[in-house]
Amino acid sequence: MLDTPNTSSLIDFIGYIDKLKSVIRKNALHDGSRAENTAEHSWHAALSAIILAPYANDPVDINKVSRMLLIHDLVEIEAGDTSVYDKDRVAEQELAENLAADIVFKHLPKELADDMRKLWEEFEARQTPDAKYAKAIDRFLPLLSNIKNEGFSWQPLDITAKEVREVCLLIRDGSVMLWEQAEKMINEAVEEGFLQPG
Amino acid sequence: MLDTPNTSSLIDFIGYIDKLKSVIRKNALHDGSRAENTAEHSWHAALSAIILAPYANDPVDINKVSRMLLIHDLVEIEAGDTSVYDKDRVAEQELAENLAADIVFKHLPKELADDMRKLWEEFEARQTPDAKYAKAIDRFLPLLSNIKNEGFSWQPLDITAKEVREVCLLIRDGSVMLWEQAEKMINEAVEEGFLQPG
Repeated sequence: MLDTPNTSSLIDFIGYIDKLKSVIRKNALHDGSRAENTAEHSWHAALSAIILAPYANDPVDINKVSRMLLIHDLVEIEAGDTSVYDKDRVAEQELAENLAADIVFKHLPKELADDMRKLWEEFEARQTPDAKYAKAIDRFLPLLSNIKNEGFSWQPLDITAKEVREVCLLIRDGSVMLWEQAEKMINEAVEEGFLQPG
Repeated sequence: MLDTPNTSSLIDFIGYIDKLKSVIRKNALHDGSRAENTAEHSWHAALSAIILAPYANDPVDINKVSRMLLIHDLVEIEAGDTSVYDKDRVAEQELAENLAADIVFKHLPKELADDMRKLWEEFEARQTPDAKYAKAIDRFLPLLSNIKNEGFSWQPLDITAKEVREVCLLIRDGSVMLWEQAEKMINEAVEEGFLQPG
């Protein structure tokens, strides 16, 4: 049986991560009514991974993938969100997120902190089938969102189909089936006029 | 390998559940800045369950509990959210949620729909250790939120400590340790004056 101070520190962490609901992302809800926050995105990603699991390229530990996606953006509590289309910022963001991870996970008892940090690092490194598939889901969702709301996060930056393809190519590493859908969706967005050709 | 029409129907479902981000709950973010939506609540619940797993009364399948919490409120896409303090509505809500489940899960291929429906029904029935613990987390989070934002969902309804204890008693069935924390928190809320004594 664990002692009460430990319960309190876990409850404090649960209070702390509530802040993820106030981290605002560049993309929006499918109906375009408002920008999405990172907590609800994390929910969408964890559940979508479970639903789309049959389409992963390699066998994955879907429970681990789901857990990975629940925590994959916790660092944004400290580091904020960055557009994947802002290449200069993406490099800076990696450094910022590493520093942020030190801050975020230090709130937890060591064993749990180490587990979560390891899971987050695996996700970021994108070397294992689990991480590749998790990243595929994480990249597919903003694409789907932009398709539904006609380029909410593309339009202000005049993003081209070429840039979307580059950013979304990681989907292929985790799921060729999902990448095929993504390519169709990108082509349709160009045809419908809410994504710059190129 | 599954065929493409099946991929499309799963992607349609992922689009459909985006609506959960627009279902507004009675309680708020911890900082009281706005009401919470059901998608971000589901994220918070699924991750909190993993973090607090050592405090479950009985051994639980934590992956199943996490999945259960990811989907536990999908029915609110069709049925909306109801205050747990509105007893007349709670009874009606059960009926509405059963009808809603028919609508929500019919979007999925049969096997996946059956799995999710079964998981949701297990959660609602609160008979298994997994469901009891999942429900404990689902009840604990709004309490924690009200403690942090000084009764955002209690104050408009003049809720008393007695009512909060009644609603939160389900926590004990899943986690006695968490219930002990809950009791302390309720008592402190009364002492601090943002929860009616009684």
